[in-house]
Amino acid sequence: MKNDKGVLVVISGFSGCGKGTMMKELLENYDNYALSISATTRSPRIGEVDGREYFFKTKEEFKKMIDEQAFLEYACYVDNYYGTPKAYVEKCLEEGKDVLLEIEIQGAHHVKELMPEAVLIFILPPSAEELKNRLSGRGTETEDVIQARLDRAKEEAYGIEEYDYVVVNDNLEESVAQLNALIKSLHCDTFRNKELINNIREGVNRF
Amino acid sequence: MKNDKGVLVVISGFSGCGKGTMMKELLENYDNYALSISATTRSPRIGEVDGREYFFKTKEEFKKMIDEQAFLEYACYVDNYYGTPKAYVEKCLEEGKDVLLEIEIQGAHHVKELMPEAVLIFILPPSAEELKNRLSGRGTETEDVIQARLDRAKEEAYGIEEYDYVVVNDNLEESVAQLNALIKSLHCDTFRNKELINNIREGVNRF
Repeated sequence: MKNDKGVLVVISGFSGCGKGTMMKELLENYDNYALSISATTRSPRIGEVDGREYFFKTKEEFKKMIDEQAFLEYACYVDNYYGTPKAYVEKCLEEGKDVLLEIEIQGAHHVKELMPEAVLIFILPPSAEELKNRLSGRGTETEDVIQARLDRAKEEAYGIEEYDYVVVNDNLEESVAQLNALIKSLHCDTFRNKELINNIREGVNRF
Repeated sequence: MKNDKGVLVVISGFSGCGKGTMMKELLENYDNYALSISATTRSPRIGEVDGREYFFKTKEEFKKMIDEQAFLEYACYVDNYYGTPKAYVEKCLEEGKDVLLEIEIQGAHHVKELMPEAVLIFILPPSAEELKNRLSGRGTETEDVIQARLDRAKEEAYGIEEYDYVVVNDNLEESVAQLNALIKSLHCDTFRNKELINNIREGVNRF
């Protein structure tokens, strides 16, 4: 009788806030998660495997998937397409997995429109100063690249209130534990337990 | 900068579903909880201490508190008044404690109206059959008393969807851990973190 369907969790956050590491830790250290695998038209980087980091597609293949409404969301960024294949997410949810989907704010809005039961979580740095250090600190990029990142952070800061929850990434282990506790608690949401509630009410009404 | 104010958690559930035991376990085994102490005009039972289980009041005292708007909610039940003194709850919340308030559904609605940031949690039994066993099983009551309890359960079953979350009390230890994880996760709600978000955004906009 208990609600066994997974929850689709959209995770966003400033570039450099550590959300990728947090998701990796969630998958490695906690049960019952699946990672949504995006499709993209960008070229694989060294070490990336098709079907693991991304489904690598040609622009023609990607556009065909758009025509077939096979995406939960997609967007074009720096001349490449990125999208979330719908079928894979739905399969994992039906299997009872909580599905992690790391996308930008625009994509998050599209997913929420198509699947209002999805939950949007924004990962915050402990402070703006700490974020600036992380964005500036790799030492291998030009000032222009760094300034572009800082400017992007300004854009990313606009939509935070539209997310359902925020999690601060200060201490990695604690922050990941908090993220896990939060996601597991989403299963207690009343609207996800209508069948259980109805079953109990029907039984009680026969008393 | 982090949100340090406590969350007011209203806990309801069928009589006999074990919510009292769950709250006791929360208070004993997890940090940072406070129990709201109700005022009542009913007589103390053996072992009950004024200011611990209840603030015991005369009807005159209770009505004076109503006139002074000193209650977050109050109700009359079987010829006795029960109410939640506002000042004590607010003091605990300001101290950063998550305040547990065990009340009936009507009271829960009043609290939510006065404090929309309060969170309503309904404790469910694993099944209607199990609830019936618990309500019938003490062996010391007349059939009339038992039937009155069963009828009351039917009334209690009506408003469950109006609660924010449900927690099933099947295995006590696990259910209490789930309740704790849920309550701690409420602190991640975006609307409780406006100050943190604004501080980070202001910092980022100075990049």
